[in-house]
Amino acid sequence: METYNATAPATVLTPHALLSHWQGHRNLTRRVIEAFPEKELFQYSIGGMRTFVVLAMEMVDLANPGMDGLTTGKWKSIAELPHANGEGMPATKDELLAIWDETTEKINRLWTQLRPEQFQERVAAFAQYEAPVYNTILYFIDNEIHHRGQGYVYLRSLGIEPPAFWNRD
Amino acid sequence: METYNATAPATVLTPHALLSHWQGHRNLTRRVIEAFPEKELFQYSIGGMRTFVVLAMEMVDLANPGMDGLTTGKWKSIAELPHANGEGMPATKDELLAIWDETTEKINRLWTQLRPEQFQERVAAFAQYEAPVYNTILYFIDNEIHHRGQGYVYLRSLGIEPPAFWNRD
Repeated sequence: METYNATAPATVLTPHALLSHWQGHRNLTRRVIEAFPEKELFQYSIGGMRTFVVLAMEMVDLANPGMDGLTTGKWKSIAELPHANGEGMPATKDELLAIWDETTEKINRLWTQLRPEQFQERVAAFAQYEAPVYNTILYFIDNEIHHRGQGYVYLRSLGIEPPAFWNRD
Repeated sequence: METYNATAPATVLTPHALLSHWQGHRNLTRRVIEAFPEKELFQYSIGGMRTFVVLAMEMVDLANPGMDGLTTGKWKSIAELPHANGEGMPATKDELLAIWDETTEKINRLWTQLRPEQFQERVAAFAQYEAPVYNTILYFIDNEIHHRGQGYVYLRSLGIEPPAFWNRD
């Protein structure tokens, strides 16, 4: 058995595994969007929080311009994000799902442009949040899990059974 | 620029980075536990969901016996987990925080026993969920983020401002 070295650059995640991990979570979030009734998707919340359509569009705002930033090196600021001011928001669940699916395709397409060594490089995401690229992408995923978990509470409080958390297909 | 190869074993995360990522999330979850009033931690929920103390103890049940399983190869089943039957549950917030802190120390201690190459090996976590080790650990973290996000809704609905999501110190 090797002696453990905390700084040894052993591979925990490959780029391909990180993409699969993210898209698995995105599959689940898509099912959560589908589980909302049309009206409640746009109007329902708890404790003064944002509606699930707004939370889902925040996920899109990180993922879609985020992939542009990671692959071009040019970042919009948070205030310049497409939906930060409520502009260009979907008007129906089907429109939201179409935006979601476009983003899924875009992530897959642009992922091939990420250089393997790039994941360890530091970047100032959205011209503001400086971190290694792997951390920036994990943040996008964590933020999605966090807000999707909130969507589960919205659904439960509406008497709707949410999709199984463990299923990422 | 290298040509991208989706199967190239480039390093996205090192063992050390994964530990830091997990413990950062655990720092935040600890603050969420602290933010709950004593009574609501044990009694409050929305939509028939579990209380936050039960959700937090599920996180402990994955992390603590999970690290035992990963380092010894011996796994308890889900039904055998310490708190699965409500036994050994903390009676106060301070007791929960003490259990939380013991688990934090245990993760740090046992992490040094994980072999670098082990993260890519397949394991049947809790004698049931077969996946590569990296995926098993990411699942523990994802499950924590998911349920902690639910705790945010509980807090907001109680009129309590939750800790900042981005702060992992």
